[in-house]
Amino acid sequence: MGNRFLISFSYEGTNFHGYQKQGKLRTVQKEIEIVLKKINNNQTITIYAVSRTDKKVHALNQFAHFDLKINIKPDKLKRAMNTYLPEDIYIKTVKIVPADFYARYRAKKKEYEYIIETGEYDLFQRNYIYYFPHKLNIYQIKKALKQLKGEHDFTSFVSAEETRENKIRTIYKASVKKKKTLIYFNFQGNGFLKYQIRNMIGTLLMVGLGKKKPEDIKVILENKDRRSANKTANPEGLYLKNIWFD
Amino acid sequence: MGNRFLISFSYEGTNFHGYQKQGKLRTVQKEIEIVLKKINNNQTITIYAVSRTDKKVHALNQFAHFDLKINIKPDKLKRAMNTYLPEDIYIKTVKIVPADFYARYRAKKKEYEYIIETGEYDLFQRNYIYYFPHKLNIYQIKKALKQLKGEHDFTSFVSAEETRENKIRTIYKASVKKKKTLIYFNFQGNGFLKYQIRNMIGTLLMVGLGKKKPEDIKVILENKDRRSANKTANPEGLYLKNIWFD
Repeated sequence: MGNRFLISFSYEGTNFHGYQKQGKLRTVQKEIEIVLKKINNNQTITIYAVSRTDKKVHALNQFAHFDLKINIKPDKLKRAMNTYLPEDIYIKTVKIVPADFYARYRAKKKEYEYIIETGEYDLFQRNYIYYFPHKLNIYQIKKALKQLKGEHDFTSFVSAEETRENKIRTIYKASVKKKKTLIYFNFQGNGFLKYQIRNMIGTLLMVGLGKKKPEDIKVILENKDRRSANKTANPEGLYLKNIWFD
Repeated sequence: MGNRFLISFSYEGTNFHGYQKQGKLRTVQKEIEIVLKKINNNQTITIYAVSRTDKKVHALNQFAHFDLKINIKPDKLKRAMNTYLPEDIYIKTVKIVPADFYARYRAKKKEYEYIIETGEYDLFQRNYIYYFPHKLNIYQIKKALKQLKGEHDFTSFVSAEETRENKIRTIYKASVKKKKTLIYFNFQGNGFLKYQIRNMIGTLLMVGLGKKKPEDIKVILENKDRRSANKTANPEGLYLKNIWFD
């Protein structure tokens, strides 16, 4: 009896210590599991998400699956979850999937966005956009992004805390666009490692400032050494935007 | 010795009990005065703002004046204030004004904006835009706004808590525009009374839903009775946008 559910949800990362459960800290996983336990007659439920976003990083569309033994329709489950969840998490869709659907393994493409303000400080954006008030050469950044596209060993851009051995990933799309004083980076790939995007952004900003050349990216990748890249960009500009399944 | 300063500042109203000091409650005035006391060698400073915004209402450009006996340049004062202020208040400009410049009496025009989301719920906007997922007839709202323009006794749209006797004010501009599912109201006038804009919005939304006619506005104004208008719209959609001085 019961069903496996796949949910999509958004959250504002500001007041979370990231997605994943960590003891008593306030995390997205913990808040959702507290609510599901309530709905599931006080029986503990574990949820399995696709991406582990870090502290203060946002999600527009995160996905997770879990099993419920009780019978409940997707629409009713969505309503119940949103009723009990805190206001910085919102369940967008709920659907029943086959009992062997494992969300993380079925995810074939992930999209992240990173937003930067280069103009005037706006306090309303302090938790949502990285404030970096410098003139950036977008043309040079575009050339650097081309070096990141494709299949690479991303060791130089990965946190020492990353536990996964294999650092080879494929980036399908790496783009940047400017709208007035805002800069939007967009990355699509088969997967991203811990701090990978924020470390790539940190280095891309150095390229934009003229402190690194676009060609340096190739060398940094080849070095396979975190010390050859620049420092990690702030979390508040990063959004898990979408996930596609096969 | 010393100078009178005029500051412009923005704040996110979410975590404030409004602008004005109220005992131990966290208010914008209180936070700014705490910081000025620190800068002013521990001597208390009172600031005099132009508008008293309510709990959860935002300001893009609020203004206030105050006197400092110490000698400090405007640029340095701005930097010092922003260093000590909490992150939901930001000082935008600081300038020295004549010793008899009283900001509230010199303000000749104030502008407020009210933003509504009529489409999909977006948790990132929950503190910044009023969520009202209904189809609104903008054409009818525009007709109603015309009735509000000009000089009127706004008693029907004013909170019982308003202490000012004279309820006559002039609205120079009252407009609405739609951008996709967002609705932006803009009001400019010589002054607005407590809850006046939120009460006007509450009634304008009823016009947009077809539950009131544009012509009803005229009758409501003539009634001079708060009960003839509709309920107060939420604070999170309201912004004090600008103030002009003579």
